[in-house]
Amino acid sequence: MGCRSEATSVVTWVRRDRRRVWHGFTQMAAYEETRPVMVERAEGRELIDVEGRRYLDAISSLWVTTLGHRVPELDQALVDQVGKVAHSTLLGNGNTAVVELAEDLAPVVPVSDPRFLFASDGASAVEQALKIAFQYWWNLGEKSRSRYLVLGDAYHGDTVGSLSLGASGFGTDLFDPLRFPGVVRTPGYRHVGWRSAALEALEASSDSLAAVVIEPVVQGAAGMYVASPEDVRTFAEACQRAGVLVICDEVATGFGRTGRMFASELCGIAPDIMSIGKGLAGGYLPMSATVASAAVAAAFDGDDLGPRTFYHGHSFGGNALAAAVARRHLALFHDWDVLANVAARAAQLQELLGPLAGLDSVAEVRSCGLMAGIELAPPKPGLRWGRRVCAAAVEGGVLLRPLGDVVAVVPILTSTSSEIERIVAVLAESIERVCL
Amino acid sequence: MGCRSEATSVVTWVRRDRRRVWHGFTQMAAYEETRPVMVERAEGRELIDVEGRRYLDAISSLWVTTLGHRVPELDQALVDQVGKVAHSTLLGNGNTAVVELAEDLAPVVPVSDPRFLFASDGASAVEQALKIAFQYWWNLGEKSRSRYLVLGDAYHGDTVGSLSLGASGFGTDLFDPLRFPGVVRTPGYRHVGWRSAALEALEASSDSLAAVVIEPVVQGAAGMYVASPEDVRTFAEACQRAGVLVICDEVATGFGRTGRMFASELCGIAPDIMSIGKGLAGGYLPMSATVASAAVAAAFDGDDLGPRTFYHGHSFGGNALAAAVARRHLALFHDWDVLANVAARAAQLQELLGPLAGLDSVAEVRSCGLMAGIELAPPKPGLRWGRRVCAAAVEGGVLLRPLGDVVAVVPILTSTSSEIERIVAVLAESIERVCL
Repeated sequence: MGCRSEATSVVTWVRRDRRRVWHGFTQMAAYEETRPVMVERAEGRELIDVEGRRYLDAISSLWVTTLGHRVPELDQALVDQVGKVAHSTLLGNGNTAVVELAEDLAPVVPVSDPRFLFASDGASAVEQALKIAFQYWWNLGEKSRSRYLVLGDAYHGDTVGSLSLGASGFGTDLFDPLRFPGVVRTPGYRHVGWRSAALEALEASSDSLAAVVIEPVVQGAAGMYVASPEDVRTFAEACQRAGVLVICDEVATGFGRTGRMFASELCGIAPDIMSIGKGLAGGYLPMSATVASAAVAAAFDGDDLGPRTFYHGHSFGGNALAAAVARRHLALFHDWDVLANVAARAAQLQELLGPLAGLDSVAEVRSCGLMAGIELAPPKPGLRWGRRVCAAAVEGGVLLRPLGDVVAVVPILTSTSSEIERIVAVLAESIERVCL
Repeated sequence: MGCRSEATSVVTWVRRDRRRVWHGFTQMAAYEETRPVMVERAEGRELIDVEGRRYLDAISSLWVTTLGHRVPELDQALVDQVGKVAHSTLLGNGNTAVVELAEDLAPVVPVSDPRFLFASDGASAVEQALKIAFQYWWNLGEKSRSRYLVLGDAYHGDTVGSLSLGASGFGTDLFDPLRFPGVVRTPGYRHVGWRSAALEALEASSDSLAAVVIEPVVQGAAGMYVASPEDVRTFAEACQRAGVLVICDEVATGFGRTGRMFASELCGIAPDIMSIGKGLAGGYLPMSATVASAAVAAAFDGDDLGPRTFYHGHSFGGNALAAAVARRHLALFHDWDVLANVAARAAQLQELLGPLAGLDSVAEVRSCGLMAGIELAPPKPGLRWGRRVCAAAVEGGVLLRPLGDVVAVVPILTSTSSEIERIVAVLAESIERVCL
């Protein structure tokens, strides 16, 4: 290995990286020692680093990649759109690529007669949702409906509004003074009685609520806590019966991740407002959207330049390049019957992970579709098992990343049977190696 | 024109658009009657609609487009990166395209020994800035520094945190209950004595301030109010002397828009934290970043998984496709000496707009670089002169969009002399036609 040029070595790249790039959710002082993967290119479900090492992407590049990397059809969609226009503003004007995308998404989302307000970051789509719900009541003259009911352990993003909806405990409690008040919190999916508690909280506060905000079925960032779809339906329907808007944050669960196109479908619910992101453009480009029912959107109709308008917008909302990729992605999703593969691979993953739950070092295995969490059971705090197990997996050629001591396994939706086997085998070896 | 197929007509497209797409800052009930431009493709500085009509893009597709649309070199950079990888996560891992971009940006930004935390929406870059400033003091143990000093008329974006920093009056007062408290406000650039007032506010509150947040030199969204760079420097330096962090929001002013690469350079200031976006990737793709000095970033160094870490990150922060375009954009910016053209065209624009200030229907003309605002002077409210003048300009083939009754003129940085002439001529005609 002595002949490898210094300039292309991982060590050199990581040093350069650490000097200039600040990585999210990352302690930069420890960056070099945590042996990050330094990606230069990719193929299919594999990321390839600067030394040519290959890593099976078992986190879908943070839950965004759906069909894989370097999908020829998506690449072509991007190239075709580059030949038309990369971006034109949606503020007051239109772009055909966006109209076509919205039309193709309309029959796919579980929102009634939907309207799409595009942004780029997932957190922005949550911010739009919460502001739309707030102004909806204001426009209807019900100005006392200004609170939100949310679940414990919820994660909705890191901007101040989404952080305000989210639970404490992601290392962000220090920002409490910036979070808005008036959020009613009720236990999350990890608690057996969450549904009853949520129904009680709803009953106690429904008259003052603008909306209920949930991650349907799976609370991912919390550590992959999974609810029964029936419980979620019971709660969401109670909210709608009480006249409270239901916002489903499907940024993480959308686009096939849970086995259906959207987790709301698992429950059979029709959210009034939905936030989507991550897989919307196949994980290629930043694109998110807030989807509102026609009934919600109608409350914003009024005089041009008048007070009922939603005065909110992001410069790159409805980026044409992302829209073109997203549209082709949606077509491929159907053409390839991706959900059939998700069903097969999810069943396989669940079966293969089952035995891990019997290990002393594992507290619980949870999964829904191709989102799984293996909660380790370190005998005392400070062992950093989650971090170390994932580091061992990376050494074994499988990219994993922990949520505390929960190892998240989020394979790309087109993964093959042997890739799922390899992910679980490397994970099991890594647990054995670290958690003796 | 009778033989034009129904499917390709603007009217049909706009109807389809209105049915499914919710446009930011747009009253959708009036969308069809406001005759939006329905963009299908573009060339250089022109947007081309579905009927082949061409519009000179005099708003840079909402202040984002720098070099133009369909720039062969940027298109090629995108295609080249597509052949490597579209996206891989930056949470705990790296991507060479992002390292190279950060290294190329480092000598260009006016922040000392900078670190780059990438996001996609501009508002997200502001949210990151305000949270970094907040946690900076918390990490240093100075937990009482939790307030922000901001200017009147400020606009920093629409997510709840950036909205909290911004001024009232953009149709968003209804969201006051969601905005965080503890924001000290002092008059904006439109007030002659803004500097003295700001210095007094600083003196009165400096011990409790986490940061001062400013749009250096130009408050764009407010209506293009322009400050003297010396005043801004005096204020910013006083903040830094008082130990208060200076956050410059250069999302709108960055990348050549004011005549220098960043408006901070006009003032000769080195912000501790800077937010950038819009032109970062040439207006092609959503990309924003928060730039922090090494001194600020160092306060976050600590134990892996420890409490000093910045637990914040967006899935698409550091998107490889956007990074590749941004890097090529930066090189072209220098190779083409874009700032020389901005200087020439800005002088020309200022000279040509001058006579408009003499019209009874114009209250004031303000400009800095290639950001200009023509404030109309309607004799009574409700005339919607801003909207109507821009609609007339669009009919004349020049895309303009108002900020209330201020017509914003923000030409693409590579505009030619004759294009600037055309923009002003069409604008003048439109004013004459509407404001008689």
